[in-house]
Amino acid sequence: MSIQVTLPDGTQKSYDDGSTPYDVAKSIGEKLAEAAIGARVNGELYDVHRPLPGDCELALVTAPRIDKKGRSKWRDEQHEKDALYLLRHSTAHVMAEAIERLYPDVELAYGPPLDTGFYYDMKLDTPIREADFARIEDEMKKIVEENRAFSRYELSTDEGMAKLGEENNKYKLDNAEKAIEKGSATLSWYITGESGNWEDLCMGPHVDTTSRIGAFKVMSVAASNWKGDVTLDRFQRVYGTAFFGEADLADRMEALEQAKARDHRVIGRQLGLFEIDEMVGQGLVLWKPKGAVVRDQLQKFISEHLERQGYSQVFTPHIGKLDLYRTSGHFPYYADSQYPPILERETIRQLADGCSCCAELADKLTFDGENAADIAAEVSGGGYMLKPMNCPHHIRIFASDKHSYRDLPIRLAEFGTVYRWEQSGELGGMTRVRGFTQDDAHLFVTPDQLADEVLGCIELVKIVFSTLGMDDYRVRVGLRDPDSSKFVGKESDWDAAEAACINAAESLGVSFSQEPGEAAFYGPKIDFVVKDVIGREWQLGTVQVDYQLPQRFELSYIGADNAEHRPIMIHRAPFGSMERFIGCLIEHFNGAFPLWLSPEQVRVLPISDKFNDYGEKVLAALKDAGFRADIDTSKNRVKGKVKSAQEAKVPYMLVVGGKDEEANTVSVRHRSEGDQGAVPLEEFLQSIVKERDERSL
Amino acid sequence: MSIQVTLPDGTQKSYDDGSTPYDVAKSIGEKLAEAAIGARVNGELYDVHRPLPGDCELALVTAPRIDKKGRSKWRDEQHEKDALYLLRHSTAHVMAEAIERLYPDVELAYGPPLDTGFYYDMKLDTPIREADFARIEDEMKKIVEENRAFSRYELSTDEGMAKLGEENNKYKLDNAEKAIEKGSATLSWYITGESGNWEDLCMGPHVDTTSRIGAFKVMSVAASNWKGDVTLDRFQRVYGTAFFGEADLADRMEALEQAKARDHRVIGRQLGLFEIDEMVGQGLVLWKPKGAVVRDQLQKFISEHLERQGYSQVFTPHIGKLDLYRTSGHFPYYADSQYPPILERETIRQLADGCSCCAELADKLTFDGENAADIAAEVSGGGYMLKPMNCPHHIRIFASDKHSYRDLPIRLAEFGTVYRWEQSGELGGMTRVRGFTQDDAHLFVTPDQLADEVLGCIELVKIVFSTLGMDDYRVRVGLRDPDSSKFVGKESDWDAAEAACINAAESLGVSFSQEPGEAAFYGPKIDFVVKDVIGREWQLGTVQVDYQLPQRFELSYIGADNAEHRPIMIHRAPFGSMERFIGCLIEHFNGAFPLWLSPEQVRVLPISDKFNDYGEKVLAALKDAGFRADIDTSKNRVKGKVKSAQEAKVPYMLVVGGKDEEANTVSVRHRSEGDQGAVPLEEFLQSIVKERDERSL
Repeated sequence: MSIQVTLPDGTQKSYDDGSTPYDVAKSIGEKLAEAAIGARVNGELYDVHRPLPGDCELALVTAPRIDKKGRSKWRDEQHEKDALYLLRHSTAHVMAEAIERLYPDVELAYGPPLDTGFYYDMKLDTPIREADFARIEDEMKKIVEENRAFSRYELSTDEGMAKLGEENNKYKLDNAEKAIEKGSATLSWYITGESGNWEDLCMGPHVDTTSRIGAFKVMSVAASNWKGDVTLDRFQRVYGTAFFGEADLADRMEALEQAKARDHRVIGRQLGLFEIDEMVGQGLVLWKPKGAVVRDQLQKFISEHLERQGYSQVFTPHIGKLDLYRTSGHFPYYADSQYPPILERETIRQLADGCSCCAELADKLTFDGENAADIAAEVSGGGYMLKPMNCPHHIRIFASDKHSYRDLPIRLAEFGTVYRWEQSGELGGMTRVRGFTQDDAHLFVTPDQLADEVLGCIELVKIVFSTLGMDDYRVRVGLRDPDSSKFVGKESDWDAAEAACINAAESLGVSFSQEPGEAAFYGPKIDFVVKDVIGREWQLGTVQVDYQLPQRFELSYIGADNAEHRPIMIHRAPFGSMERFIGCLIEHFNGAFPLWLSPEQVRVLPISDKFNDYGEKVLAALKDAGFRADIDTSKNRVKGKVKSAQEAKVPYMLVVGGKDEEANTVSVRHRSEGDQGAVPLEEFLQSIVKERDERSL
Repeated sequence: MSIQVTLPDGTQKSYDDGSTPYDVAKSIGEKLAEAAIGARVNGELYDVHRPLPGDCELALVTAPRIDKKGRSKWRDEQHEKDALYLLRHSTAHVMAEAIERLYPDVELAYGPPLDTGFYYDMKLDTPIREADFARIEDEMKKIVEENRAFSRYELSTDEGMAKLGEENNKYKLDNAEKAIEKGSATLSWYITGESGNWEDLCMGPHVDTTSRIGAFKVMSVAASNWKGDVTLDRFQRVYGTAFFGEADLADRMEALEQAKARDHRVIGRQLGLFEIDEMVGQGLVLWKPKGAVVRDQLQKFISEHLERQGYSQVFTPHIGKLDLYRTSGHFPYYADSQYPPILERETIRQLADGCSCCAELADKLTFDGENAADIAAEVSGGGYMLKPMNCPHHIRIFASDKHSYRDLPIRLAEFGTVYRWEQSGELGGMTRVRGFTQDDAHLFVTPDQLADEVLGCIELVKIVFSTLGMDDYRVRVGLRDPDSSKFVGKESDWDAAEAACINAAESLGVSFSQEPGEAAFYGPKIDFVVKDVIGREWQLGTVQVDYQLPQRFELSYIGADNAEHRPIMIHRAPFGSMERFIGCLIEHFNGAFPLWLSPEQVRVLPISDKFNDYGEKVLAALKDAGFRADIDTSKNRVKGKVKSAQEAKVPYMLVVGGKDEEANTVSVRHRSEGDQGAVPLEEFLQSIVKERDERSL
């Protein structure tokens, strides 16, 4: 028997049944076979030595070429992604083996690859500390140098479970059970080396051998729990990373150093922008006066454009009845990712009356038992939820009036603060929070208007990103799964909506990808992903078409035909949340905001007490022109005053002394461009008014 | 024995022991004795026939002179207040007797006078309906015409309780117990007439006889509960009112009619300003686009002035940990007036573990049992509360930095939305809500700065009220009780703070009252009460000095002496909440907001389709000048277009036709001043830019 293999260029070749990607590579060339570390077989990632499943499409995954400096050279993004996945998954095994050698008591649980490296969760009473990382790395180095091949074997599920039963590791048993539940007909193990060597229950795939691991590092250790559930066993989670080239790792370490220095949490504290206070609550941002200026200016800027585009502002409360969220479908199904509901005292007492034990009552009140939906129905009249999104409130505003097609589109905008229950381990600064203010809007449109309105949303993104100098971003268009019909709305509507999204994304003139299967079931969407100066990507906002909520809330308008029609909704929050967006901006600008966004725009620095009066005159002129300005009349010398203004990242420092007073000038110093010399005050004012009003970078 | 009576003009006279205010009046003149219906004796209101307590200061309360039109003529506000109190308290008895005649099964509970009339709470199974009011009024009329004297008698508490015990009315028994608890040495009854006539347990005082009641009316009936507790007996509460003159009552009815037409709920709905939606929740305001414009403009106006006064804006979350409110003292002591707390799922489960029955767990979760404080301590780590005020958040912002005396005053301002659990029966439109946005700020000041800063708060009030043409307001200054030392802080600090408040209040140049005993225990305060066009008073905002929270949160700054000092806090929300303030403004302006606040400022009305193009040109010019403008291109005739613009209370309508197009003019119509003739477009624009930017009325 032979199998037909179709290569990426379309050529087809026959191979013996049981051939592997390696055999295919070798049939093309010796060098290719040497480089091959895996393959995509019918889209699925495969070991290079795993027999092919039959006739298939095959694309080889090779180790990258390493340049003279030690950096990997990639064909494309997919190449990098696949090769690093194989490498890191393999390095996780190497690290686990190394740790097991050093800590024989360890019980390993689960070790997946990540975008930036990998981790391994393990039960181990001895805490692993940073000082131990070198020892672990030394053991790993040995394994890498031993150049051991990763080899796969499979057992039937019965045999496999019997084997795991003997080994008595409940975590691995649980992993296997889950795999079987998901439909695995067999269980597979990977040996690092030959029979008798270290092995791990694993779906794979892996690189061919440990020597592919060119550079690696144990990065950190953190606490975690089995299944992410704080009530279950406590784990240590050891993070590591791996690359093909030494310089790749060095680059990563350098970027991390830079990221640390630019960390918005560090800068935010230094500049007094915001505070996250345990006493108020984790993940809840206090915007201090300087941070509030940045947010306020940004909101005003966005509002100006919203007004220009015909949006109407609304204000809505931060809570809503459970019934509202039952109608929208957000309760009880997403209860876990929300703050627990606020039940009226009366409701709690009624629930207690109908309960036979405290545990039952507690179950009801937490809504995380199996009967969440029933209980939700029982209490929906007497409870509230912190709003996890603004749409139901905006919908109710729309529904409070009768509408004709002539009123549409209706565009309701709100800087609406919403609350979601992120796990505490996932919180970080302003980019992962529990309360955040969306630059939210909901558009109610006729089918005819959809394309224009999606385009309008995108135009705003273009203006804001370009004003802020954020040109390194990309766009993902989520389309419906072509093989599935699990979506709400008519196929022709979806076609039109998808075309509108693709067209709008295209109009941005930046890199965009169409991602079939990534749409929500209620409509296609556009996501914005920004790359920061050190190369990290941040998912910011989104534009989503929605055919479902208008149905659930039975929205309608009267069409030109005098009949009732269902409007389409667009959800859009192009910057996601003010918290995350400004967190990114802090890092993007390294705290040195452009003039219009700077909390303090100008600081006057008299060279001595004698010139404080003239300084105050200058200050008054600045304030009259609407600037956020201050004066430093401390006893410090000019050098010290400049230093402290530089630290505060004030864009302009005006040093004033005798000559300035005589000539009515100011000696201008720019925070990044240094001394600009003496300039007549009037002239300086004109130049910064222009810089501010044009929102120059 | 004789007693010395000092009259208001300072003269002293001797009377026999046992003399009454009536005797005093009679000694002055027969006419005065005829008019006398009561007296203030040592400040306390007395029946005219009640024996005086000994030497005393006495001011007679007389029935007012009634003019030819039937209106009462008052000496001053106090006269009106006292005389109407006596009259209405008496009319409550008359109504109760009348109802008891008609409904012998009734059990009467409690019938106090109100500022606008009186009510009587009663247990009665037969519902009283509006159709029954006339019957009740007829019975009352008989009693009034019988000209029966109100006569008081007293029993010892033992005798009195025995009598009540026989009568077996648990509500009256409870009233008596409360009076005794409060220190009453006797219990008193009032008979309407002579022994054997209808009587009621009552502290008094009353007018001398039923014939004083010149005009009265049964107004409405509502549901209530014993002690205002929904779990106790259901009552019917019958409201009534009474006056000395027929025209007084007619005036009141006319004012009520006007009030109904001006009701902000009615106008708010007509103009599409806001919506209160049962599906979102009672007492939670959805600000629709037009209402949001008004709020936004008002906030911008206030913000401008805050910026000018050196305030810093902040943003804070809408929830805080229970611990935060334990520290501030707002939890658990005020838990009843707040939304129930949000307990983490983990916390609920822990509480359930420690409970023996569902009722116990429910008690704990509702925090309204006797052990609320203990439970609050148990859960404080794992729970949140919707913030009932912004101070703790602002305090934590202050506390996040070290401060020198040179940094003070620090003024943190926020339009902060807070949530309080008002009983559903007390909710109404925007003036009584559960979620509202305070124009809040907290100032952290040194003792030296207190006076200036209180004055600064008051100045803002002056500017805003005068800009809005609200000149009919008064100010109450709450001072500490001179007889008590139940307050936080040093006496000298209080003296200074009270002087600062009085001085600031004086500076407003409006009527103000000093009210000893009305301060909070943590500091003196200034309240603002606005009278609307139909004479109703609305308590808006407040300025409060606080010596307590800085202590509870251990706030400090470093003084010039290099030692730590405690700052003083000022809480100020001069307009109270945007909801209530705008509710009042809607009624104040009868929906016709001044140009700068109007949701739609100008509407263009082409006289026919032919002139739509010119209309659009005019519209574009308006929009370029920053106006919220629209065009009516419907098929309606001009008359219809004008009518609909008038209904929407658009300040300016621009009718445009052929002549206008030729001459580049607009025919201006003002919503209240009518036709203004044709004006060149440029000229019109200039005039409304001025009107808007000056915020003219």
